[in-house]
Amino acid sequence: MVTIDLNCDLGESFGAYTIGNDEAILPYVTSANIACGFHAGDPSVMQRTVELALRENVAIGAHPGLPDLSGFGRRNMAISAREAFDITLYQIGALSAFCQALGAPLHHVKPHGALYNMAAVNTKLAEGIAEAIYTIGKEVILYGLAGSALVAAGKRLGLSTANEVFADRTYEKDGTLTPRTIKGSVIHDTQQAINQVITMIKEGKVHTRQGEQIKIEADTVCIHGDGPNAIVFAKSIHHQLKEKRIIIQTR
Amino acid sequence: MVTIDLNCDLGESFGAYTIGNDEAILPYVTSANIACGFHAGDPSVMQRTVELALRENVAIGAHPGLPDLSGFGRRNMAISAREAFDITLYQIGALSAFCQALGAPLHHVKPHGALYNMAAVNTKLAEGIAEAIYTIGKEVILYGLAGSALVAAGKRLGLSTANEVFADRTYEKDGTLTPRTIKGSVIHDTQQAINQVITMIKEGKVHTRQGEQIKIEADTVCIHGDGPNAIVFAKSIHHQLKEKRIIIQTR
Amino acid sequence: MVTIDLNCDLGESFGAYTIGNDEAILPYVTSANIACGFHAGDPSVMQRTVELALRENVAIGAHPGLPDLSGFGRRNMAISAREAFDITLYQIGALSAFCQALGAPLHHVKPHGALYNMAAVNTKLAEGIAEAIYTIGKEVILYGLAGSALVAAGKRLGLSTANEVFADRTYEKDGTLTPRTIKGSVIHDTQQAINQVITMIKEGKVHTRQGEQIKIEADTVCIHGDGPNAIVFAKSIHHQLKEKRIIIQTR
Amino acid sequence: MVTIDLNCDLGESFGAYTIGNDEAILPYVTSANIACGFHAGDPSVMQRTVELALRENVAIGAHPGLPDLSGFGRRNMAISAREAFDITLYQIGALSAFCQALGAPLHHVKPHGALYNMAAVNTKLAEGIAEAIYTIGKEVILYGLAGSALVAAGKRLGLSTANEVFADRTYEKDGTLTPRTIKGSVIHDTQQAINQVITMIKEGKVHTRQGEQIKIEADTVCIHGDGPNAIVFAKSIHHQLKEKRIIIQTR
Repeated sequence: MVTIDLNCDLGESFGAYTIGNDEAILPYVTSANIACGFHAGDPSVMQRTVELALRENVAIGAHPGLPDLSGFGRRNMAISAREAFDITLYQIGALSAFCQALGAPLHHVKPHGALYNMAAVNTKLAEGIAEAIYTIGKEVILYGLAGSALVAAGKRLGLSTANEVFADRTYEKDGTLTPRTIKGSVIHDTQQAINQVITMIKEGKVHTRQGEQIKIEADTVCIHGDGPNAIVFAKSIHHQLKEKRIIIQTR
Repeated sequence: MVTIDLNCDLGESFGAYTIGNDEAILPYVTSANIACGFHAGDPSVMQRTVELALRENVAIGAHPGLPDLSGFGRRNMAISAREAFDITLYQIGALSAFCQALGAPLHHVKPHGALYNMAAVNTKLAEGIAEAIYTIGKEVILYGLAGSALVAAGKRLGLSTANEVFADRTYEKDGTLTPRTIKGSVIHDTQQAINQVITMIKEGKVHTRQGEQIKIEADTVCIHGDGPNAIVFAKSIHHQLKEKRIIIQTR
Repeated sequence: MVTIDLNCDLGESFGAYTIGNDEAILPYVTSANIACGFHAGDPSVMQRTVELALRENVAIGAHPGLPDLSGFGRRNMAISAREAFDITLYQIGALSAFCQALGAPLHHVKPHGALYNMAAVNTKLAEGIAEAIYTIGKEVILYGLAGSALVAAGKRLGLSTANEVFADRTYEKDGTLTPRTIKGSVIHDTQQAINQVITMIKEGKVHTRQGEQIKIEADTVCIHGDGPNAIVFAKSIHHQLKEKRIIIQTR
Repeated sequence: MVTIDLNCDLGESFGAYTIGNDEAILPYVTSANIACGFHAGDPSVMQRTVELALRENVAIGAHPGLPDLSGFGRRNMAISAREAFDITLYQIGALSAFCQALGAPLHHVKPHGALYNMAAVNTKLAEGIAEAIYTIGKEVILYGLAGSALVAAGKRLGLSTANEVFADRTYEKDGTLTPRTIKGSVIHDTQQAINQVITMIKEGKVHTRQGEQIKIEADTVCIHGDGPNAIVFAKSIHHQLKEKRIIIQTR
């Protein structure tokens, strides 16, 4: 049987600020990546989000980011591998405390935004992050870009890993995502996005922007929780995956 | 045998900024309260400080503070009991991750500055903090002002508690510290400060500013790690306590 | 002729976070209080908001707050008068730069949230804030709670002041707002709120929660820019004030 | 007559944290670059530092940095040109308010750390920064790395510019500083450092790490205010420049 995990970034509200519609998206995903207060989230939001995910029976993961609240963790920062380890460990520890408070296990860790992107191609950063996860628990699963240096670093350490794929982004022939700055890098057509995911899951392949098909491992699909069409898209992909007899479950 | 714990606030450096002389003070104390990134400290400083305390065989505690880096956590803030719980749990969790990384147990929690002072007299805040500690571990000791609402809240929950006393501060007849804004509230004479501590430990009493003697429980003494005389004072009190056959050990 | 100013807090978005619906509310107000990056707002939001207010021909004011982004500046903090001066001056200066960039004069300053509330009753803080405004420009108008210590401090310095009144809040017999924690302190009925404003403007009086009528000076009314009914309320009060031949214009 | 300006980064303390020895270094420099609260400094420190520089008759400049307090503004961040404009304008505006409070003119702007380094080679960022300075005042001087894209951007806008050179850093043949990560990039020998400066001022040349001599314009020399030898070095270079009949004065 083919299985897939659907993950979503959650708990990105901060103080008086709200982002996303966590309650509405949770029924359609199997793993929640919860922001940890650096790029988004705060202690109270983290507490509520862990509670919410637990109630919906969704696997709880930490979603550590760069210390860049005003940039939402999306701007590359020249941090060292040591700093990557330290900030990742700090954030995972903080989220773990809320998991512990509610008796929920920490299931996975997925770095956010620029930290995720930098670690996809920078082995030193990837190793810093992977070691932080290993420190917290050998059983915690590392989520990273499919085929990336981050996933490779996790495997070398002996961590379980989940290759993440994207429904709404095009791929380059080297397996990286087409940068958002390049026209056409974001797939706006819902059906095209869902078809790309189904091909990745069923055939282990994706069509690249350059026209070739390349191999890709798809363990988990990133589902967006905000934006006007987020819920509609989540419902639709959920429905179509089931129709294709793909089992939706967490890793 | 009479025993006393000597605790010190450590790991208060931040980024390029250094406060205190952690390496120099560690040989004279038995418990370290390590800042957790809200009022002071950062992930890298926390990592180094846990490592340092472990090497010196000093008990490691979390030192959570208010989210007020520019005020060093010394300005009262009107937070709710819920927020007190959330920010305390977050910070303890973050420090615990560094303890776990190095195989060091988390021994105690002592709130910092304004959070400590507010919780000394505000039962709701005290309960929020005590519950956060209890959540992390029933065996973690709560350090609070001797005889305060914070210590009382910890006891009601079933936590072990340590009554903290101050060498260099005068006391009011209700057992609170004389506010720093009142003249004479800080004891500058080293010998007078040490004598006050010895009387508190041996006799369970302290002379108040109003002239009377009141009862006080002294489980742990706060030793300052910065300031020009910090090391000299620490050496001196260490020496004199030993001379009085008071055993210096952590709780 | 009777005139009134309608002011609104704007530019409270931050990074990826959006609060309020600035474009929709601007046509109904005559003065904009723009957040300055401490409790809300950031440099890019400030730039856009000044530009927007200028285009809509709305008077531009600075809206400095406490350094408490996670609390949206709503939590009282024990800052000194000196700190009040320094943080106010810093924030006004920052906003002034964006005004200067676009050739817009800085019209007024209205402190935000807890800073506003503390300064309403604390003369030292009020003076620190008023002096910061005076430093930037003697012609800049100080907006404060009607009849408050803040307005009084501004007057003593020779600043022009605007007494601010609230449509949707009940008043105590000493002229302060009923704390939000007291039931009934927020007026949810639109017509009752508008009637209160019209009575304050036309008769200089307000009914207190205790039942008496007291005198109140109403120079400017606070209009909320967010919440589901914000635009509807703004339209309605705008319309009814005009019907009563009250001229809506900035101070 | 040959003249040179000696500039120093000042006001880098933050809250309870102290960096540098501003009072001691001020007698030896002619221009002060004052941190503006993003990478270092806070409103109270800015107020005190402007006051101090004014008293010592040292020209006052803004020293804006990246929003990265924990990294002291030294880590490159992928900000846009628009963000560079906005954060620079914000910070200059804030410092200007303290200048205005004390009647001191704003003399110059020198970006800090990673912002300075990125703008030295990135024309778009350089233009964003230069435009922010121009907005505040056409007469404000832009300090940038000698021969850099930042200085060029300032010149294109019509700003006065000052080419900054370093005493204690080696140069590459393209005129950039040797990265600190390369061995030998920092000149530890005081006399060698001073000789390099004197050659740059008198002959307009510098020996590169590659062995060639290249042309360099030296309008201002960066003097460090912290570190164990800061004052000794400042005194020594001050003395030797005078001996060589080089006039030390601000631009």
